[in-house]
Amino acid sequence: MVENKTVAIIGGGVIGGGWAARFALNGWKVKVYDPSADSRRTLTATLENARRSLPRLTDASLPAEQAMAFCDSIEQAVVDVSWIQESVPERLEVKHSVYREIQAHAPKDAVLGSSTSGFKPTELQQGAISPEQILVTHPFNPVYLLPLVEVVAGQETTSIIVDRACHILSEMGMKPLKVRKEIDAHIADRFLEAVWREGLWMIKDGIATTEEIDDAIRYGFGLRWGQMGLFETYRVAGGEAGMAHFIAQFGPCLQWPWTKLMDVPELTDDLVRQIADQSDEQSGKHSIRELERIRDDNLVAMMRGLKENNWGAGELLNLHEAQLKKSSTS
Amino acid sequence: MVENKTVAIIGGGVIGGGWAARFALNGWKVKVYDPSADSRRTLTATLENARRSLPRLTDASLPAEQAMAFCDSIEQAVVDVSWIQESVPERLEVKHSVYREIQAHAPKDAVLGSSTSGFKPTELQQGAISPEQILVTHPFNPVYLLPLVEVVAGQETTSIIVDRACHILSEMGMKPLKVRKEIDAHIADRFLEAVWREGLWMIKDGIATTEEIDDAIRYGFGLRWGQMGLFETYRVAGGEAGMAHFIAQFGPCLQWPWTKLMDVPELTDDLVRQIADQSDEQSGKHSIRELERIRDDNLVAMMRGLKENNWGAGELLNLHEAQLKKSSTS
Repeated sequence: MVENKTVAIIGGGVIGGGWAARFALNGWKVKVYDPSADSRRTLTATLENARRSLPRLTDASLPAEQAMAFCDSIEQAVVDVSWIQESVPERLEVKHSVYREIQAHAPKDAVLGSSTSGFKPTELQQGAISPEQILVTHPFNPVYLLPLVEVVAGQETTSIIVDRACHILSEMGMKPLKVRKEIDAHIADRFLEAVWREGLWMIKDGIATTEEIDDAIRYGFGLRWGQMGLFETYRVAGGEAGMAHFIAQFGPCLQWPWTKLMDVPELTDDLVRQIADQSDEQSGKHSIRELERIRDDNLVAMMRGLKENNWGAGELLNLHEAQLKKSSTS
Repeated sequence: MVENKTVAIIGGGVIGGGWAARFALNGWKVKVYDPSADSRRTLTATLENARRSLPRLTDASLPAEQAMAFCDSIEQAVVDVSWIQESVPERLEVKHSVYREIQAHAPKDAVLGSSTSGFKPTELQQGAISPEQILVTHPFNPVYLLPLVEVVAGQETTSIIVDRACHILSEMGMKPLKVRKEIDAHIADRFLEAVWREGLWMIKDGIATTEEIDDAIRYGFGLRWGQMGLFETYRVAGGEAGMAHFIAQFGPCLQWPWTKLMDVPELTDDLVRQIADQSDEQSGKHSIRELERIRDDNLVAMMRGLKENNWGAGELLNLHEAQLKKSSTS
């Protein structure tokens, strides 16, 4: 569908560099514009990281890696491309000014995606020459490995641009998640922010250190979330009785004075029903017993993977294994 | 260190059953007391799940599985054991009454661990015959697979009991995390609750469905958290400039009106310093470049594991691989 596989990367920091690597290793010609003196060095380092890890995710050959060109101007970067990815600092006036320069020279049918985590696409479109080609395509670090991209259309974005963006992202092995409504921070970062804030409190109050908090995550629910996320994990935990039962049992805990973050939605019957119905639609095709086994198989596979790397839960497995071997020979 | 490997499981629901399986598959004799008619069935099912998954986590042989006995009374279950694990409903008066019956018959040097997620150990100790043997040992579902156990001592718990509990948990391949201070919900569940509450809001406001929320987690930050947790992930993301720089750059975002949960600790220089110092202590031994490679290796290993299971990020890899293979032969 996309004939001209050329992308302009505007802003080559951690996120822009990750995008550059993701595109380059998927056979796209990459043109980078970043005014900072350091960007070529960090971008080269990111590309090296990507080269050693991304190909190991698949047994198939990736398309031949394409050259990366560093441009002296936005104009030079954006002419004759089919995707422009903007990852400049999170200041709205900066982004608006960059869009004016991009859109003075870029093809009108190119996707103009923003890596913004904070702004809504309709805010980005304000005062733009061609607001219809602007949308949010928010990735996650490291962009060359993690599949998720939040795709958020603004009021002016055409469905052609949204579809084209999703198609290209899928072609590069990514997971475009169309976000239904524009909200600040989209979806994932709202969770990250809630957890980050809770973590700050714990450190401030001397409840736990960064290491203890990380361990509380990576030896426990982080392993669940890496393969099923939140609601499906609870669906399984609720057992045969299903999501509505789970919420009825655990939902009221939210009204306990557990945290310092206490704005709680009222758990009406409607809300409980809504969650249970959505959960049924999501995975009603599997029995809870099947889901349990899927979950367990995934946890085993992830932990076996970490075991080969001798890291986190995997390091623990190796220590335990050594213990077991020692005690069986003594 | 523990001669008498016999455990009493008081309450055999999802969590108690998971404990029973974890102990049994690690060579402990298990005595279960649960008055509900259904407990034998669910417990047998949990044990079956554990038998098919836990042994695959290690290349060594586990100790020979021991028999599981179902008891007709608490007395019968707790005599002559070295660990009693209480997983009865989360009502304080119920737990107090169960402890009175347990402690009338159990050895004084046994660990009496509670699976409570909501109560502090000092609350559990109120009115107990032997408060010094009571502590919180809070596990995560599925208990037979996930390593994390939050170990929380109450005001009366002896350090001998805490050390014994940690030793036994480690021997069973688990990760005891000693929690420094008693707070409601310990550590991990505070995060789970913050995220759960944010998820409820999103569903209520029609921002995202359960499936979209799960995808936002499991294709993105869930994969990061499963191997590094929160702070170490950000340490890597901050790059060579380190944690203090990362917080200076991203911390202020917390004061934006992003979520409906708005009680934010003030980001004083002291707090920033404290976090940065803790992070240095946690992983200052690795350079950021090393940490990046560790992170990438782990993400690859976990995703390869999920790929074999054709699930989540792994299903996506397979689809992409099939696409790539198809396009290279056409």
